[in-house]
Amino acid sequence: MPASKIQSNSGNASNSSTASVLMLKPPYLIYVGDETRATYAKTGAGIAYWRKDMCLGQFRNDTSAVDLGLPDLTIEEAVAQGAGSLVVGTAQIGGGISEALLQVATEAASNGMDIVAGLHSPLSSIEPLAKAAAEGGARIIDVRIPPKDLPIGTGQKRSGKRVLTVGTDCALGKKYTALQMQKDMQARGLKATFRASGQTGIMIAGSGIPIDAVVSDFLVGAAELLSPQNDADHWDVIEGQGAIFHPAYAPVSHGLLLGSQPDAIVVCHEANRTHVSGWSDFELPSIENVIARNLELARRVNPKAICVGISINTSKLPAEQREDYLKSLSDQYDLPCVDPIIDGTDPLIDRLQMM
Amino acid sequence: MPASKIQSNSGNASNSSTASVLMLKPPYLIYVGDETRATYAKTGAGIAYWRKDMCLGQFRNDTSAVDLGLPDLTIEEAVAQGAGSLVVGTAQIGGGISEALLQVATEAASNGMDIVAGLHSPLSSIEPLAKAAAEGGARIIDVRIPPKDLPIGTGQKRSGKRVLTVGTDCALGKKYTALQMQKDMQARGLKATFRASGQTGIMIAGSGIPIDAVVSDFLVGAAELLSPQNDADHWDVIEGQGAIFHPAYAPVSHGLLLGSQPDAIVVCHEANRTHVSGWSDFELPSIENVIARNLELARRVNPKAICVGISINTSKLPAEQREDYLKSLSDQYDLPCVDPIIDGTDPLIDRLQMM
Repeated sequence: MPASKIQSNSGNASNSSTASVLMLKPPYLIYVGDETRATYAKTGAGIAYWRKDMCLGQFRNDTSAVDLGLPDLTIEEAVAQGAGSLVVGTAQIGGGISEALLQVATEAASNGMDIVAGLHSPLSSIEPLAKAAAEGGARIIDVRIPPKDLPIGTGQKRSGKRVLTVGTDCALGKKYTALQMQKDMQARGLKATFRASGQTGIMIAGSGIPIDAVVSDFLVGAAELLSPQNDADHWDVIEGQGAIFHPAYAPVSHGLLLGSQPDAIVVCHEANRTHVSGWSDFELPSIENVIARNLELARRVNPKAICVGISINTSKLPAEQREDYLKSLSDQYDLPCVDPIIDGTDPLIDRLQMM
Repeated sequence: MPASKIQSNSGNASNSSTASVLMLKPPYLIYVGDETRATYAKTGAGIAYWRKDMCLGQFRNDTSAVDLGLPDLTIEEAVAQGAGSLVVGTAQIGGGISEALLQVATEAASNGMDIVAGLHSPLSSIEPLAKAAAEGGARIIDVRIPPKDLPIGTGQKRSGKRVLTVGTDCALGKKYTALQMQKDMQARGLKATFRASGQTGIMIAGSGIPIDAVVSDFLVGAAELLSPQNDADHWDVIEGQGAIFHPAYAPVSHGLLLGSQPDAIVVCHEANRTHVSGWSDFELPSIENVIARNLELARRVNPKAICVGISINTSKLPAEQREDYLKSLSDQYDLPCVDPIIDGTDPLIDRLQMM
């Protein structure tokens, strides 16, 4: 590590970084286009499910495309109704952008709507679209690009409370668990904010930082920025990334864990998953080991960190086994254990309220 | 994490990435300029100390500047002797580049010498220098910029053996320990390569990857690339980065640890350092805890990882206390314990040879 890095952090209690999280402009028009496969419209479906109130409508080429349950609007109608952003709710195969999407995005941008996407090739590199955005006073926002000038982590304790979802693996429900928790907390009148650490989460929340795209040295600092100081009785519900036993993404999880300084963690797991998805030589760690390692690492910055529950994605489990499965895990770990999408997360919130 | 990342890793045993480590062109002319303070010429001094055979000479404005013990050469003389690169061996205060350095670098570049530096502002953004380099057929290499198109980590075991230096903190001797180990191993006729993970190390080794500048998702993949497959009896001696208990840089260490798949670690510590340098609220972990946590994390990818010794920077210890201090640590941990710069690392190499 160059000496300059240590010097730049001298007096580390304060931080002179001017970086800020990505902020999107609602309300959204969700782009579905001609996508007929639900899996490829998952992002759009997630936004419509969790944030219907932020969505004005959907843009579909015709009625054979996936229906997100939102009003069908043209760009002209969306602009007239005050749409802030066109959000690309579909995966663009091959990483590029289709001619149809480009045409719609250009019309939206020239009418002042921000264009929001998380594609492999940055939209802003497409000349006609960039020109339309400049003329229309719109932004082209790639939710895969982190803010500039991120700070180095300080390790300083911030006010407010934080709960972080962690996992036995990637892609098994950390985001949805956090979203459901925030919803259930707000239903009880608790102050709670969902903090998005990945691209789909950012589109749903309207703000956040794509933590896994941050340069390693600034990972903890980015995570600190994501859940800033807050009221003493306010909860940040932070979307986890990666998994602490993951052979490739463990460092991302480690950085988010340190920067989040969680008071509480919730462990997420998918019933019947036995190996790391995509890394088939690696067995999944036990839930016990995931709890232990996350707490061990988190306690470097928050010695009081505890685990408040287990969140299970039971979608691969026969329905009649679900209840027994959750109960047996709950007994084994002496922790509440829920499938958040089916049961909600009330038993987890009960634990948070006991803290 | 977007699904595309899992997909792109399917069949993870092979990796289609075309990324390669930075490779510098020796022999070097080291730029000292008018720097009179040894601390600010540390990079140049390190290169001259560890790789005298790669250095043709030094460029100094006059004899009041720091003397690296190399012949003083003009650019013209260096070019005539076949110099491959002008390496900036000084810290440029303020992050910019001095007028004097710019003039020398431009002359060198227009004569075909690569310009190598690790400054805050990239040299390649300086128009006249970029032009001179293009005309002279030279490269401008910023050793703080990692290679493009880095792969995702695979976790697959590679042939050859690896030892990684880890630390109780940053900036206390991980690089010098690794360099001394490589030297001592080669003196015994062992096959050993120093693998540089930071900017000064890269200048010394002539190749490497600045691990802390890598985007988090690719950290493990970058570390895997740094120490590729090798002969079964070949040792990679890998320069550590960060520290696993560090409040800001632990994730960097974690990624390098996973990607290195070390068979052995050496723990580095500075005698009398009690707190994390620059993060004064954080006490240093014990050597025992540093060994335990590094091995615990490393064993996810290499279940046989062990600790072979302790390397102490005793520069802050009164000379008469040194021997007792090292012996007491050695007894406490039942491991060889050396100050590599004073004693060499033979007791550590003995342990490696027992593996």
